[in-house]
Amino acid sequence: MPKISTRGQAMPESPIRKLAPLADKAKARGVKVYHLNIGQPDIKTPAVALEAVRNIDREILEYSPSDGFKSLRLKLAEYYRTFNIDVAFDDIIVTAGGSEAVSFAFLSCLDAGDEIIVPEPAYANYTAFAIGAGAVVKPVVSSIDDGFSLPPIEKFEEQITARTKGILICNPNNPTGYLYTRKEMNLIRDLVKKYDLFLFSDEVYREFCYTGAPYISAFHLDGIEDKTILIDSVSKRYSECGIRIGALVTKNKIVRQTVMKFCQSRLSPPLLGQIVAEASIDTPKEYMAEVYDEYVERRKFLIDGLNRIPGVYSPIPMGAFYTTARLPIDDSDKFCAWCLTDFEYEGCTVMMAPASGFYTDNKHGKDEVRIAYVLNKEDLKHALIVLEKALEAYNKK
Amino acid sequence: MPKISTRGQAMPESPIRKLAPLADKAKARGVKVYHLNIGQPDIKTPAVALEAVRNIDREILEYSPSDGFKSLRLKLAEYYRTFNIDVAFDDIIVTAGGSEAVSFAFLSCLDAGDEIIVPEPAYANYTAFAIGAGAVVKPVVSSIDDGFSLPPIEKFEEQITARTKGILICNPNNPTGYLYTRKEMNLIRDLVKKYDLFLFSDEVYREFCYTGAPYISAFHLDGIEDKTILIDSVSKRYSECGIRIGALVTKNKIVRQTVMKFCQSRLSPPLLGQIVAEASIDTPKEYMAEVYDEYVERRKFLIDGLNRIPGVYSPIPMGAFYTTARLPIDDSDKFCAWCLTDFEYEGCTVMMAPASGFYTDNKHGKDEVRIAYVLNKEDLKHALIVLEKALEAYNKK
Repeated sequence: MPKISTRGQAMPESPIRKLAPLADKAKARGVKVYHLNIGQPDIKTPAVALEAVRNIDREILEYSPSDGFKSLRLKLAEYYRTFNIDVAFDDIIVTAGGSEAVSFAFLSCLDAGDEIIVPEPAYANYTAFAIGAGAVVKPVVSSIDDGFSLPPIEKFEEQITARTKGILICNPNNPTGYLYTRKEMNLIRDLVKKYDLFLFSDEVYREFCYTGAPYISAFHLDGIEDKTILIDSVSKRYSECGIRIGALVTKNKIVRQTVMKFCQSRLSPPLLGQIVAEASIDTPKEYMAEVYDEYVERRKFLIDGLNRIPGVYSPIPMGAFYTTARLPIDDSDKFCAWCLTDFEYEGCTVMMAPASGFYTDNKHGKDEVRIAYVLNKEDLKHALIVLEKALEAYNKK
Repeated sequence: MPKISTRGQAMPESPIRKLAPLADKAKARGVKVYHLNIGQPDIKTPAVALEAVRNIDREILEYSPSDGFKSLRLKLAEYYRTFNIDVAFDDIIVTAGGSEAVSFAFLSCLDAGDEIIVPEPAYANYTAFAIGAGAVVKPVVSSIDDGFSLPPIEKFEEQITARTKGILICNPNNPTGYLYTRKEMNLIRDLVKKYDLFLFSDEVYREFCYTGAPYISAFHLDGIEDKTILIDSVSKRYSECGIRIGALVTKNKIVRQTVMKFCQSRLSPPLLGQIVAEASIDTPKEYMAEVYDEYVERRKFLIDGLNRIPGVYSPIPMGAFYTTARLPIDDSDKFCAWCLTDFEYEGCTVMMAPASGFYTDNKHGKDEVRIAYVLNKEDLKHALIVLEKALEAYNKK
């Protein structure tokens, strides 16, 4: 049998994916599993978005332009302006989710062997897309004891080699909920300038900043406009992860032209998703405010609850809807699996994402898990009790 | 400014894409452009498919499974059985169009420097996806004088090296409309066996076989089940190119597991597209028969019309909805551009795909164009007149 590619072999299987069959088995046993592991909100998609699908009056579901509908790109540009991000519609390329935006950015900018520096813990699929492009992720590890703030800039400089091509940040951050300060963003900007790097900035959670601290976009930084590649997605802000609509935004014309070649090869982004995304931008302020308030409450509720459990510590996340918390355990991979295979409390258990999957070197994150607050407060409340009981039982073994 | 990747530089820009701005300019001048260049049918999407979108009763447009909805995969397996293709639902992975299926197949099976042999002329984006995976397309050129039948198998063997990893065929063929015979498919099978290669078989046009000759799927071939990777898409058969739903089908478990890692990195295929695709499989036989009859008529009409024009020759395509025809011209790139920039007849002109884009070595196809019969007969009729006048005028220059 012919062999698969070394790239395919190198692709990581995420620790969450490894747990999925265990969760299925738990459910088959009749155990209720609280999904604290995923970024799929339980929030309803805005009515305007659903209405747009139901009212489709097309007779042919034909190809759309490879860079997406101009009408959508115009509305996105308008939307970005409300965040003081000044981009024109033709700086925007519509992609099949933020995922495709990351993938095409890497394929366009990174050669095999090129390196990108990524503060960790980080979204695991960045590494997958880097492997797809043959590129190498050089991690700079942040610490829960510093609340996952930006590691000292010297740590970044230590990682720079002749092959360093860019820095990737996620802000507000998945999996930590950290929001980079103006000062930190300026340090990143200086580094990008000094070493002539690309700045890949994933800002899909910008709607979800809770502390009054300002959201600083990569596009708010002076002097690196032509090095900045913004990754965006409508998935989280309108709770429509399934439509697969994202965007790659850059003022660098050569990058855009190159990305477009990859876009043309896959013909077009999803037509129906674009119709939904375009309508979603008209979501009433009340909906956005309600969702925001809901997450604010859940955040407080979850973080307070976590920190009340003996031995558990969670920094206060400033954005997104995750926290990376420290648990009194030896090995989060083992503990998260054990919760699904060997534990239940009042017929329930919890599924969490072991933090090992968010670090390149899996010696990190052994006592950390990512918890998403995408469940309603009632469920969160019970999930916290179940987690406390699970920790007690696990440590008594 | 940091440099883009060599891969990005190497990505071809398709000749059709280069013509697009010229077509826009022609339209801006008020010229009607007959689009014979694209694979976007003018056929209406089946009513059951449109109804499925309009009746969506979900409240959250959430992620779907990375390999697609099981219900869709079950129905696809059933659909394949009607073509005597015996696959189980879990041999099927749902992708964002046939495009993603090709891309993930290459990323999973081909290393940088690996080679695949492709009979040409061939769909240009195969090369784009090969470049994405760092792989190399080794062409075996078929000839219009042989009706684009399979080149002698020795020509394939001449291209085999230590790096040869697979053969890719498109059957029925885009851009020629050729349908491989049982004998030809057996020769391919023997080659695949002899050299232990993957067989990537793009069969998205299987509904469109016009001559009574049998459609031989790669899955009809004995003894290469674990080497066969079928590429499929609902785009063409239900005229729903925009929904971006395709499939990768293989009985090779290791390939499937590897492809799944790429699928998981991009989270899920489009949700709404899957709903449409699933409903489409229930399209009434009458619709399919009507569409089929329409293409049969158009094909006869187009091919007869082409062969009546002095100096023009088109073999009779047996499937799909394209033909690659020979025109009495020096350079199809120039001629196709000239039709858009310098010619009109009764306020109309034609846009065609220069065949140079379908060959790796662009010395081939200089006097060939691909013509799609995706327009109604009235438009095709006038387009043929316009083409004849264009050829007269071009050769009088």
